[in-house]
Amino acid sequence: MIDGREKKGNKTKEALLHATITLIAENGLEALSANSIAKKANVSKASVFHHFGSMETIQQEAFIYADVLMSEALEQIYQEAKETDSFADIMLKYFLFFIEEKNKDYLNLINVQMQFVVKSSYDTEFDDLIYGKDSEKTPFDFFEILVNDFYGDTLDANDLELVNDLLGAYINGFATFFISKADTEWLVLLWKENIKMIEIYIQSLIESNL
Amino acid sequence: MIDGREKKGNKTKEALLHATITLIAENGLEALSANSIAKKANVSKASVFHHFGSMETIQQEAFIYADVLMSEALEQIYQEAKETDSFADIMLKYFLFFIEEKNKDYLNLINVQMQFVVKSSYDTEFDDLIYGKDSEKTPFDFFEILVNDFYGDTLDANDLELVNDLLGAYINGFATFFISKADTEWLVLLWKENIKMIEIYIQSLIESNL
Repeated sequence: MIDGREKKGNKTKEALLHATITLIAENGLEALSANSIAKKANVSKASVFHHFGSMETIQQEAFIYADVLMSEALEQIYQEAKETDSFADIMLKYFLFFIEEKNKDYLNLINVQMQFVVKSSYDTEFDDLIYGKDSEKTPFDFFEILVNDFYGDTLDANDLELVNDLLGAYINGFATFFISKADTEWLVLLWKENIKMIEIYIQSLIESNL
Repeated sequence: MIDGREKKGNKTKEALLHATITLIAENGLEALSANSIAKKANVSKASVFHHFGSMETIQQEAFIYADVLMSEALEQIYQEAKETDSFADIMLKYFLFFIEEKNKDYLNLINVQMQFVVKSSYDTEFDDLIYGKDSEKTPFDFFEILVNDFYGDTLDANDLELVNDLLGAYINGFATFFISKADTEWLVLLWKENIKMIEIYIQSLIESNL
């Protein structure tokens, strides 16, 4: 049972994680400090350390939290669309979600995740800290569910994995365009074409298995 | 005419740019300093400022230099292969080049370019500094040449642009896998499959234009 104090604690913790993600997206990972988080979340610096113990912990938890928020968003889109929409329509809905002005916070998540990937590439300690601890669910899991639901009956396990891995590469690639403030109209057009290509490819996999 | 002093100056400048790129790839953009560059290149700190004036200039020139080095590598691969190899073979050669242990410095270029993209996403001044000044040739230009040489006769301008833009997204996506030290064997397999997908897609574009 969660008592009032714990509830408040969780609420503060969530606010701190939100503040952390926003700060990373706005000023970069290197500029992050307990002071800046405290200021952004309107709490004391002591409170930051009370909830997280160290800057390492807050970075670690912010990364996991970003994964959770992203996964929740993708899951909601999927649940609302899966009965009625095609594979291509759902893929497009995922994309459009991150472009909407009101979902700017979700675009921040992409930025944060990209910063973590890049920092991990040259900082081994950071890499261990962040990727040593696996999240329960990652956004990529949702693409796996999507691909499995639509093509699990027609593709073998090997092909399903290939499609998933390729999707992972494309999502990362489009993520770099996203954070580069590329023209939105062009991005949507390109993503639609990308979905088309994936569908043509999947069709060729299905045919080669017949 | 280049006199001895200027030649030596250019050589030192190149050494400084090489040192800068290595340092960024090894320790991240934020850790870069005139001191660390001087130490790495075995020159005085004064020499760093003599050649570049400011840290801004050295970052700017390092970015352009990374583009030049990358473009030269891609061009050489292309020149050696274009008479004999297929589109898919050349695409594969590009990829394998960056995986070879002896070309580790070129993998550093990918890392550096990714760091610049990410930092530009939240630092407007840095974005202006780096991307305000266009390089003469960017690595993406070489993919454009490749696509044009192989498909310029069969695809219209609109389709050629689409294919180029999609290639750009995939290259960025695979770049994030590259710098994440993903398993090389898996990466090569995935890239081959990616080329296959692009070829199937191009074929479908050609057929829809007939």
